[in-house]
Amino acid sequence: MQDPSSSRQNIPWFNAQSSTHHTNNPDTFTSTSPSFELLENGTLSHETDAAQASVPYAEGTTIDWHREEAAERERKRNLHAQSGLRGLMAPILDSARMWLVIILTGIGIGIAGAWLDILVKWLGDLREGRCAHNLFYNQVACCSGLDPGEVCKEWQTWSEYFGISSILGSSLLQAWVYTSLAILFAGGAAVLVVTYAPYAFHTGIPEIKAILRGYVFDAFLSRWTLLIKALGLALAVASGLSLGKEGPLVHVACCMAFLFARMFRLKYNESQKRKLLAAAASAGVSVAFGSPLGGVLFGLEELDTFAFSNEIDVMWRGFVTSVIAAVSLQWVDPFGTAKLVLFQVTAGSDTWRAFELVPWLMLAVIGGLVGSLLIRLNAAAAVYRRNSSIHEWPVLEVVGFSALTATVCYLVVFLRVQSSELVSNLFQECDPIKGDFHGLCNPTAVWRNVFLLVLTAAVKVLLTAWTFGMMVPAGIFLPTIAIGACIGRAMGILTQELQRAYPAAWIFASCPPDPTVRCVSPGFYGVVGAAAMLGGVTRMTVSLVVIVFELTGALSHVLPIMISVVVSKWVADALGKDGIYSVWIAMRQYPWLPPSEYRDQGQIAGQIMKPAHDLIVVVDDQTTSLKELLDFARKHGFHGFPVVSGEMLVGFVVREKLRAHLERLITEDVDGALNETQQWTFIKSAARANPELVNLSSLLDEAVLQLRKEVPLQLVVNMFQKMNLRHVLFSQAGKLTGLVTKTDIVWLVTAHLPHTGALAGEI
Amino acid sequence: MQDPSSSRQNIPWFNAQSSTHHTNNPDTFTSTSPSFELLENGTLSHETDAAQASVPYAEGTTIDWHREEAAERERKRNLHAQSGLRGLMAPILDSARMWLVIILTGIGIGIAGAWLDILVKWLGDLREGRCAHNLFYNQVACCSGLDPGEVCKEWQTWSEYFGISSILGSSLLQAWVYTSLAILFAGGAAVLVVTYAPYAFHTGIPEIKAILRGYVFDAFLSRWTLLIKALGLALAVASGLSLGKEGPLVHVACCMAFLFARMFRLKYNESQKRKLLAAAASAGVSVAFGSPLGGVLFGLEELDTFAFSNEIDVMWRGFVTSVIAAVSLQWVDPFGTAKLVLFQVTAGSDTWRAFELVPWLMLAVIGGLVGSLLIRLNAAAAVYRRNSSIHEWPVLEVVGFSALTATVCYLVVFLRVQSSELVSNLFQECDPIKGDFHGLCNPTAVWRNVFLLVLTAAVKVLLTAWTFGMMVPAGIFLPTIAIGACIGRAMGILTQELQRAYPAAWIFASCPPDPTVRCVSPGFYGVVGAAAMLGGVTRMTVSLVVIVFELTGALSHVLPIMISVVVSKWVADALGKDGIYSVWIAMRQYPWLPPSEYRDQGQIAGQIMKPAHDLIVVVDDQTTSLKELLDFARKHGFHGFPVVSGEMLVGFVVREKLRAHLERLITEDVDGALNETQQWTFIKSAARANPELVNLSSLLDEAVLQLRKEVPLQLVVNMFQKMNLRHVLFSQAGKLTGLVTKTDIVWLVTAHLPHTGALAGEI
Repeated sequence: MQDPSSSRQNIPWFNAQSSTHHTNNPDTFTSTSPSFELLENGTLSHETDAAQASVPYAEGTTIDWHREEAAERERKRNLHAQSGLRGLMAPILDSARMWLVIILTGIGIGIAGAWLDILVKWLGDLREGRCAHNLFYNQVACCSGLDPGEVCKEWQTWSEYFGISSILGSSLLQAWVYTSLAILFAGGAAVLVVTYAPYAFHTGIPEIKAILRGYVFDAFLSRWTLLIKALGLALAVASGLSLGKEGPLVHVACCMAFLFARMFRLKYNESQKRKLLAAAASAGVSVAFGSPLGGVLFGLEELDTFAFSNEIDVMWRGFVTSVIAAVSLQWVDPFGTAKLVLFQVTAGSDTWRAFELVPWLMLAVIGGLVGSLLIRLNAAAAVYRRNSSIHEWPVLEVVGFSALTATVCYLVVFLRVQSSELVSNLFQECDPIKGDFHGLCNPTAVWRNVFLLVLTAAVKVLLTAWTFGMMVPAGIFLPTIAIGACIGRAMGILTQELQRAYPAAWIFASCPPDPTVRCVSPGFYGVVGAAAMLGGVTRMTVSLVVIVFELTGALSHVLPIMISVVVSKWVADALGKDGIYSVWIAMRQYPWLPPSEYRDQGQIAGQIMKPAHDLIVVVDDQTTSLKELLDFARKHGFHGFPVVSGEMLVGFVVREKLRAHLERLITEDVDGALNETQQWTFIKSAARANPELVNLSSLLDEAVLQLRKEVPLQLVVNMFQKMNLRHVLFSQAGKLTGLVTKTDIVWLVTAHLPHTGALAGEI
Repeated sequence: MQDPSSSRQNIPWFNAQSSTHHTNNPDTFTSTSPSFELLENGTLSHETDAAQASVPYAEGTTIDWHREEAAERERKRNLHAQSGLRGLMAPILDSARMWLVIILTGIGIGIAGAWLDILVKWLGDLREGRCAHNLFYNQVACCSGLDPGEVCKEWQTWSEYFGISSILGSSLLQAWVYTSLAILFAGGAAVLVVTYAPYAFHTGIPEIKAILRGYVFDAFLSRWTLLIKALGLALAVASGLSLGKEGPLVHVACCMAFLFARMFRLKYNESQKRKLLAAAASAGVSVAFGSPLGGVLFGLEELDTFAFSNEIDVMWRGFVTSVIAAVSLQWVDPFGTAKLVLFQVTAGSDTWRAFELVPWLMLAVIGGLVGSLLIRLNAAAAVYRRNSSIHEWPVLEVVGFSALTATVCYLVVFLRVQSSELVSNLFQECDPIKGDFHGLCNPTAVWRNVFLLVLTAAVKVLLTAWTFGMMVPAGIFLPTIAIGACIGRAMGILTQELQRAYPAAWIFASCPPDPTVRCVSPGFYGVVGAAAMLGGVTRMTVSLVVIVFELTGALSHVLPIMISVVVSKWVADALGKDGIYSVWIAMRQYPWLPPSEYRDQGQIAGQIMKPAHDLIVVVDDQTTSLKELLDFARKHGFHGFPVVSGEMLVGFVVREKLRAHLERLITEDVDGALNETQQWTFIKSAARANPELVNLSSLLDEAVLQLRKEVPLQLVVNMFQKMNLRHVLFSQAGKLTGLVTKTDIVWLVTAHLPHTGALAGEI
């Protein structure tokens, strides 16, 4: 057995045979999802067959899709092979249980999303006042049932409640309650997260993406995380911090699916589990945006759920879960509107004019630039936090920053309201009947409004850059939409003002001649601005357009949205190729492979391959003892080892399987027939030739994929992306020449990013 | 050089190294798409480098994705590598040209689809009468501008026009014109197709599916096919044959993209071309159903466009093309409604009752059974036609069958109207204001209506089963929808009648007590029936639900649609696993691999592998002459040959490349330095050792993927599906053990289907 003298040992990424270098919280990592264990049914006689025995993956490793799929195939075959009625019913029951979990997850996340909305609305309104006849009513519920024009007396601001009439006194009290409750809510969320479920912080989408592609991280989906993420999310959103609920809802949906799967004892293995999680993630997006189709497409595009399976089933399950979740949400009807959409957009003018493409293209460019800036600021903030002492005091950080946020926001009217309310109003066209939102439609206050909107956007960029990464559940979608909507509305107001000032200019010739008819619809500029900003931050395309499209409804308005999304993506891509989720994945160093096409510059696989003489391999020379082999398996932490005989490649053996088998062999050896010093072989023919040797050939994975090292690098990356491989062995004329693991490929593809690995192993 | 003594020679599928066994029309097959040739720019100095020279594929072969992708990478690198401004502009121009083609295709198919609708409506109405003031107006256009209640006098039936007043005379004249024009239109379509473009017949979707997965079939996309398919489609639909325009529109869109790509001299290779066609296909569906999202999802699910690339770009391009096509269609506005939807559905009651699930489930089961029956009848009809003398007289067949269709249809009122009009009315709820469609809403004629609807469905099943496969452009979607709508409406009427008869029964307790309020909406039953029938025939899931969903609009109604689609698919799957397109692909024996997961029964690759001793290989023993090698390359029609030295695998050489290189070597050998009898080698070290040998190593593809024959069969199928491979070599300790080609895998996966290969090589 040879030991490597690798000169690359100091680069963590080249400890590539194993992915266990993530030093995660040991407490939460001891449970390894017992209910997902494969083939716990002893009657299937797999306990005795070493080659079939399943080995649970340790947290932080990457699953072997090929092995998992083979195990699933074996499980299905065994289900069908049972005799009599059992053989007939078992597969149906198996499938029915899966669908039960999917339907329950859909219903669960729909209801959870609805109640979250209700809770947030109530907590948020509580910061401004209370309902006289019932503390648990929010402002809308409290004032419902009034005639138009009637003033709502049931809803009291805190100063009214405490009977303070002086203007200074009431202002101070309002500001004090507003800020205190913000601190209380945010601090509460942080305490919950830090104490009970550290994985409940942040958006969760980077982790979900990594998990879906094979990363093992069951603690991220525990029931505590579910509870704390949902509760903490409500508190965090209500606190007025610059964050949204969209990403965390996806995480909550995945936790829910995991919980239900355990509850109904779905005996899924790791690859099946991921297909279930993919469906749940789609449902999360469906509920977050009220858009079931957007959810499916988000699953396809951003979560890349299609990549790990060519089964149309995955898409179908995602679709069913999304629809059920959306219907459940509509059934609870949190906003009392019987509508799914978050932000009702008034159709405004049914048509748009060609000259409007100019401001929209400007918005797209601004969206790309600001989106790219936000990503950079956010990454810089995260790295700074990690390397400073702030990292030691997460709750204090949240409390301090929420105090700062509340104070700053109380001063600017557009910042003071809840983000969702702000966006909702920015997307509305001005309509004298509906009333004016804080003077937004006042034609004499154009410059004040533009200034306030730009200020709001700028402050929100700074606040969001720091907030997204604190120890509270936090999504990036809503703040991004709010920033974009502010910029867009400002641009819309300016364009409208220009058109009103020069109605006869040739560029405005397509406007209706009647000056009372609106030509420019600033509300729709807000939508375009939001789409552009989202494009710059997330770099999504189809799913983004679909989600925004479902907000507006008019097909003719898809064209401008599409143009703004794609231009903003181009601009942002020129400044840095990856969206915010990819940047976070790289910073936290999850073994995730971007689905985008990798183009090499003529390199071959040999250039990134770990050559054979640097590899730790099992040498099958039939001279070493079982004891030595066991020691070897215990000593090296890698996932597995190539087995060679001389220089010839024999196969690959998984370490855990080898260790478990050897330990069983040695401890069960009661009659002393098997000696620790006995020699062994993996080669069938050698075992046959020499019956003295212990035959380990059943452990060997002979069916290994072999490549030549002259293969273009692009092809190797492509194979890892599409086949979800864990490693590939290279050989030349039967001799082992090297090994490439997924980790090597991830390193290759993400090395260019700034801050790669800066947050690895955090928490 | 060894020759095989294969015992499987008589099975056509085992001539597996080559796919050229499709004996297609030699006339149309001589052109091999010159504008798609790779690297025609001589400055790139590839003409001299034999290893890089591109070889056009012959029609009927399968492309090598791996090679095409490598060539595209090389082309991109060369574009960027040009010096100065050219290096800066060339990639931008390249991309701009691609987008131009995409946008033009979108606009083109949108306008073509709109004009097709107008043409069909006019031709169809012409069968019943004419517009008095302008022959070129259809009935709606002719009668527009009337006040409600006013009778349209401008539109004259033919008997009115010719002034025939006797009832018998007018009936006979009407029937005669109706039938004659039907025969004229259908016959015209058949003559056009048979004379000018035989590939314009049928739906085109099976061929598009095969092309997208790598089948080379450029004649299918020629400009003649485009023209004839569009014209013939209008004639065929107007003739009243039981066919629709949806599938053929996808074909037309692909022809259009191909035409524009040639026009703008897009120097795309085969893999890039397919990505363009995928976008066009989505646009075709988008126009056919007025549903851009349905188009993208159809592309993903049915055409499997995602499988050949992990680039999100493919999805994005499809989405952009779909939206542009839909907007263009809306702009032309063929129905004058400013709406995209084909069949406006009245929302009916906003809610549905639990007891309705019973009739809906029955509809789903019926849809699955009838759908499966339709597939079987259609396949049987196609096989019968092929083996009988009908096959020799395609135009006569169309004329005769259209006469039969017209005669039968003229007798039943629901069959006489155009299918789209029938479906549109079946989906409408009864509304006294809108008038009654041929007595459908007459409450006293329940049994008459149910009988007529079931009769209509039954006749349409028989007519469609024969029509889909005649020598006219024909889609299966609309007839399927019509059959389903008839059955669904009949079920709805029965349910409504039952509820009205027993309003107090406990099962109807959830209905409103007021008997004048409608409880059951028969129109929506029509939608459910159509969805179920489509599910049974096409076996689509997500895209089907989305397309039907966009017809109804109400989210709460997605649940019943979803349930009916999935139940109908289950029922139909139990009776035969493949949808109608898969059955046709198998019958015509295209090298297409279903994307569904293949599960082996424990087999290994070795069991389907063509073993080494049966393969025709190039033996590199440095003793044969160039002449002999050239003769060898000319003699064997395979795509390429493994090169072995002794038993050791050296690499793979593509036949066309080898032949072209050898011919150049021998003909260019003016000074006689190179002798035909000279010996050669592919092995670099051998060439270095012996300078006498002609070094052919630049032709060799060393970077071959090698597997061991112990690999599970499932993994091999999976690799072919996901990596789009053309062949895989098997080796053991460096020795060639065998070869598996895509054709073998296709055979393996489709062998179970009835009638596999029954229509191979037709036309």
